[in-house]
Amino acid sequence: MKSADDIILLSHGGGGTRTSELLKSVILPVLDNPVLAKLDDAACLSLPSSELAFTTDSYVVKPLFFPGGDIGRLAVCGTVNDLAMQGSKPRYLGLGLILEEGLRVADVRRVVESIARAAKEAEVEVVTGDTKVVERSAGGGLFINTSGIGIRRAGVDTHVSNARPGDVVIVSGSVGDHGVAVMSAREGLNFQAHIESDVAPLAGMIGRLLDAVPGVRCLRDPTRGGLAAALNDIARASSVCVRIREQAIPVREEVRGACSLLGFDPLEVANEGKALIVCGAADEERVLAALRADPLGGEARAIGCVTADPRGRVLLETALGGERMVDVPTGENLPRIC
Amino acid sequence: MKSADDIILLSHGGGGTRTSELLKSVILPVLDNPVLAKLDDAACLSLPSSELAFTTDSYVVKPLFFPGGDIGRLAVCGTVNDLAMQGSKPRYLGLGLILEEGLRVADVRRVVESIARAAKEAEVEVVTGDTKVVERSAGGGLFINTSGIGIRRAGVDTHVSNARPGDVVIVSGSVGDHGVAVMSAREGLNFQAHIESDVAPLAGMIGRLLDAVPGVRCLRDPTRGGLAAALNDIARASSVCVRIREQAIPVREEVRGACSLLGFDPLEVANEGKALIVCGAADEERVLAALRADPLGGEARAIGCVTADPRGRVLLETALGGERMVDVPTGENLPRIC
Repeated sequence: MKSADDIILLSHGGGGTRTSELLKSVILPVLDNPVLAKLDDAACLSLPSSELAFTTDSYVVKPLFFPGGDIGRLAVCGTVNDLAMQGSKPRYLGLGLILEEGLRVADVRRVVESIARAAKEAEVEVVTGDTKVVERSAGGGLFINTSGIGIRRAGVDTHVSNARPGDVVIVSGSVGDHGVAVMSAREGLNFQAHIESDVAPLAGMIGRLLDAVPGVRCLRDPTRGGLAAALNDIARASSVCVRIREQAIPVREEVRGACSLLGFDPLEVANEGKALIVCGAADEERVLAALRADPLGGEARAIGCVTADPRGRVLLETALGGERMVDVPTGENLPRIC
Repeated sequence: MKSADDIILLSHGGGGTRTSELLKSVILPVLDNPVLAKLDDAACLSLPSSELAFTTDSYVVKPLFFPGGDIGRLAVCGTVNDLAMQGSKPRYLGLGLILEEGLRVADVRRVVESIARAAKEAEVEVVTGDTKVVERSAGGGLFINTSGIGIRRAGVDTHVSNARPGDVVIVSGSVGDHGVAVMSAREGLNFQAHIESDVAPLAGMIGRLLDAVPGVRCLRDPTRGGLAAALNDIARASSVCVRIREQAIPVREEVRGACSLLGFDPLEVANEGKALIVCGAADEERVLAALRADPLGGEARAIGCVTADPRGRVLLETALGGERMVDVPTGENLPRIC
């Protein structure tokens, strides 16, 4: 039989002694830093600049633990990557935990430990946080919100509206791994080949890319909606046509197989450790070299180019030499992937 | 029969066309500002200072709408007040919505409109956001995370560790209103007297207080765990004894009645529009005058004082002249109040 200390109770979210015990036994020893340890309602920060990037994301992925990652690692990497894609250096995270009554305290600890490891890897600190508890339901046990502050790099503008005809489109590695890993774990599918999520913090790789090529036009992480959504964002915001070649897009064989089995398009499946880069044609080799110098960008490839027309569209040259339009996914197929 | 457009579907959280439709029809027209409208993964901000306060809080209150407020107003005010109590001017909010499948789109719109009104009242802007959808469950329909950035005032330190023997303890108005209003709405209690939540943004009042008396020692908003938790935070962090007089603590008659009926201690019930202030005895009158000049502080009163011993304790002088210790609440009684 479990003792009350082993599972989350509603009173752990009441703001009293039980909340404080949970913080002191499970959260603070793991996310150890002097600002958070003060347990103030807001963290006081002295930043080296007042030019900031600010972002927030909630994570509701089910299951909480999946091959290659877990909701904690995902929450850190997703927010860090949003800041990095804006051309900023991620610095501080806020962590909001919503726990479901009945959740195992051991699982909370495992998630918080994963958050700490990912934060260290990404060189960010969790400086403020909040914990709430809701009644037991089918909710899946644990939601995480991470908000983040980054310092913007001077002279860098990586907005999705900057693509121009003649530019090159590059992806930092294979697509579809995260979504397929989560869906496989959720459905209890046992593919012969083990598929792992690519969830990883990209700020280091992107920082070195921007050191080498500060004039990169656009950066985007193809998360929810996958490559299809990210490319459409660029085509629309820049009012250009993005043309990609199916044969150039790196998709692992086992991911392609799983997608075909599950009825997904690998271009629409979420990635959590990949960057999409648009750069001038003259910068292509330098961008590829900078990405490939990083373990997370070893498989970086040019997958297409930018033309003027048809404006706002993404066109795919198929393996057979045909052409089809890549639409924005409707979002019907892949719920709770991040 | 409801059309699919009337209720939230899992696909509204998929990051594709449905997510985009929801944002464009329900959220962006209401939270209208140029930074948010860019729909970037992170907001780019140029702040007037690099000395910041940063905070995050999740809101899981049930029911979503209660007398005097709703989860949207609460989410804005709670975060704004955390920043204000740190002696900073709240500026920017990040908004994370977790919607439950089956929630009425009209309710989402109502909450977002309330967020917009509260943000305007508090003079903050929602500059970044995220929307996720989870399966239908007993979750209660809607969770909100608000993260916030404020600019710290130079020369102001309102930390809970600053109280000293001889200081005065002041509360900006009656306590217990928020928690009792929410519990009454949840339990369907129909008290003869209508009890409304006090949820309000305090940044304006606190800003004017700090203009008048920059040397205020401690500021705290007595939210979860109520006055009891906030006073214990001060007593422990400052290593002093906080002594309060029961007869001096403003509690509305109807709140006192409802607490006695429901078995709650008004000192342990959450407030969402009240500030607790500790100041030097010489500043008492100026603090009271500054608070009372604001509509939200009209009932401000001194409720006690700070002594050296017993360190770390909160003592209450009862109406009958006795004395009892005020403990940190356990958090057993009032779940999902904020």
